[in-house]
Amino acid sequence: MQADRSEKLITLGVDVGGTTTKLGLFRDGKMLAKHFFPTGKEKDGGVLGVVADKIREVMSRSSISLSEIDGVGMGIPGPVTGDGFVMECPNIDLKNVQLDDSFREVMPELDVPVRAGNNANTAALGEMVRGAGRGHQDIMMVTIGTGLGAGIISNGRIVTGYKGYAGEIGHLIVNEKETEPCGCGHCGCLEQYTAGPGIVRAAQKLLKDHPEIPSPLRSFSGGGAEEDLTLPVGIVPPEMTAKDVFAAAFNGDEIAELVTTRACVMLGKALAAASFCSAPEIIILGGQISRAGAAMLDSVRGSFRRYVHPDLAEIPICLASLGGNAALIGCNYMIEQFLKEN
Amino acid sequence: MQADRSEKLITLGVDVGGTTTKLGLFRDGKMLAKHFFPTGKEKDGGVLGVVADKIREVMSRSSISLSEIDGVGMGIPGPVTGDGFVMECPNIDLKNVQLDDSFREVMPELDVPVRAGNNANTAALGEMVRGAGRGHQDIMMVTIGTGLGAGIISNGRIVTGYKGYAGEIGHLIVNEKETEPCGCGHCGCLEQYTAGPGIVRAAQKLLKDHPEIPSPLRSFSGGGAEEDLTLPVGIVPPEMTAKDVFAAAFNGDEIAELVTTRACVMLGKALAAASFCSAPEIIILGGQISRAGAAMLDSVRGSFRRYVHPDLAEIPICLASLGGNAALIGCNYMIEQFLKEN
Repeated sequence: MQADRSEKLITLGVDVGGTTTKLGLFRDGKMLAKHFFPTGKEKDGGVLGVVADKIREVMSRSSISLSEIDGVGMGIPGPVTGDGFVMECPNIDLKNVQLDDSFREVMPELDVPVRAGNNANTAALGEMVRGAGRGHQDIMMVTIGTGLGAGIISNGRIVTGYKGYAGEIGHLIVNEKETEPCGCGHCGCLEQYTAGPGIVRAAQKLLKDHPEIPSPLRSFSGGGAEEDLTLPVGIVPPEMTAKDVFAAAFNGDEIAELVTTRACVMLGKALAAASFCSAPEIIILGGQISRAGAAMLDSVRGSFRRYVHPDLAEIPICLASLGGNAALIGCNYMIEQFLKEN
Repeated sequence: MQADRSEKLITLGVDVGGTTTKLGLFRDGKMLAKHFFPTGKEKDGGVLGVVADKIREVMSRSSISLSEIDGVGMGIPGPVTGDGFVMECPNIDLKNVQLDDSFREVMPELDVPVRAGNNANTAALGEMVRGAGRGHQDIMMVTIGTGLGAGIISNGRIVTGYKGYAGEIGHLIVNEKETEPCGCGHCGCLEQYTAGPGIVRAAQKLLKDHPEIPSPLRSFSGGGAEEDLTLPVGIVPPEMTAKDVFAAAFNGDEIAELVTTRACVMLGKALAAASFCSAPEIIILGGQISRAGAAMLDSVRGSFRRYVHPDLAEIPICLASLGGNAALIGCNYMIEQFLKEN
């Protein structure tokens, strides 16, 4: 059904995450309702079948009927080409799928345009429309969590590129001296220093190499706690997370400070390299790690300026402002934008 | 005047270079006539005044009248924002100029849409439409000459970015150990190794540091020829160019090979970094240096694969195919694209 532009646009945003999926119902970009549910693959049609069922359920309880919906914008946790093709997205079991076609197959009664994108990219779009990037058309948003990826927006549109890989700066090589390999096979990738597992690994290595330095991180697993014979039998020390490392650094712990400073320096270096390519008007940091917040920003900015061309040194680097809603809002904007132009 | 889409589009492409300007008259993208003239600044209205005069002169001799022209696409040798604003372009004396407005001021009788872009970017657009990038919508074209810059096209459009700086990969830092500064103030920029002056400087340094190695490059200035007491009085040895260095490398000269290999390795490294951001479907090398041709390609490709993510290693790297016409064709395409969409 073609949207009648004289009427208000009713759209659905669907942000399919590795563990949780968010569904939002929007009228002219305003979110009317939001639902969370576990990302499942157990249905016929896999993850898309589960999403379709949830949409049916939600709409059956809504004052808006399914037939009033003008389009669907969907984000998934993996590369998506500009045409909505997914080569591989292992964590939600998608492979060689034309996402819009496949979705219409599992939900034929909702015969409307469907646009798909990677959720690091839709998060960038969301921050552009309603968040920290408001007023800009050229932005880069870096999402730092278990992995690290950027969403690049140019002229108000997602840059997708070859196989949907644009913005995959997590594997930019920032340290040629590194000898430990990253999951991708190369050594010295940004993710090895600045994403969650890399931060934890680096802290654990320093704790092991410098047993003489006291640190609150020693009470976590991998920090030496396993060898603490005073722990009651059967008590397992807690897993260390990047958040713990940032918290320790905030409290002045020497080892944690070394690790987080390096994380920020490497990130600044990579952002400089990325800025030579896409020259964003603003760089936005989001995701779990970015919650370390202001303490992180100064360090990243300093490193960025050290490596970027003087004419680009004034590009602002700031924190995301929409939290977990950015990708959902971006998914919806993606379909709104499409409907308005077509 | 709004283009009537039922009629054929008549457009002008103007590629303003540092020394030569090219003017092309196009009908539906087909070039009907091409004119070269020295880029001048002596008129009222500076470089734009000279262009306007040349257009008047050319059109007065054409069977097509000025009033039939639907639009003008113009490229200049400096950064241009997406809105056609030029902050600074010293070699053609432009500063803080809204290019379309300024052009209409000097040529009020040609009251048509004018689109402006950087000519590394319009060259990329040209190669996309008629050259080595045909069939693609996401490309990166690197122009290597006195400087080094890339034009990045995403979804068929030029990525301009902050201040028009997108694609300025010449100042990407590829060697943190470098102690000699680049013109930008940083040390270890790509331009220091892979653009013309950098290649010559590197060769001259090696010749000086290793006087024991024989080399045909010694007959050039800076290669030791100044000290050749057998030269007749008053005979000045010729200036060394990057072309001479590539020619010597092609003939197996040890010093030249070292320099050109490093130029290619650094370029491959930078292309890998750039590919993590914009993920082009194809990378095209153009400009004077790229005429070293196939010999250069293997080396660049090898280095690229060494640094890029395995999933991007298959991005093809090839030579430009339109030569000096790419930017002119791209200028014209830029205005055609605009007229068709507006």
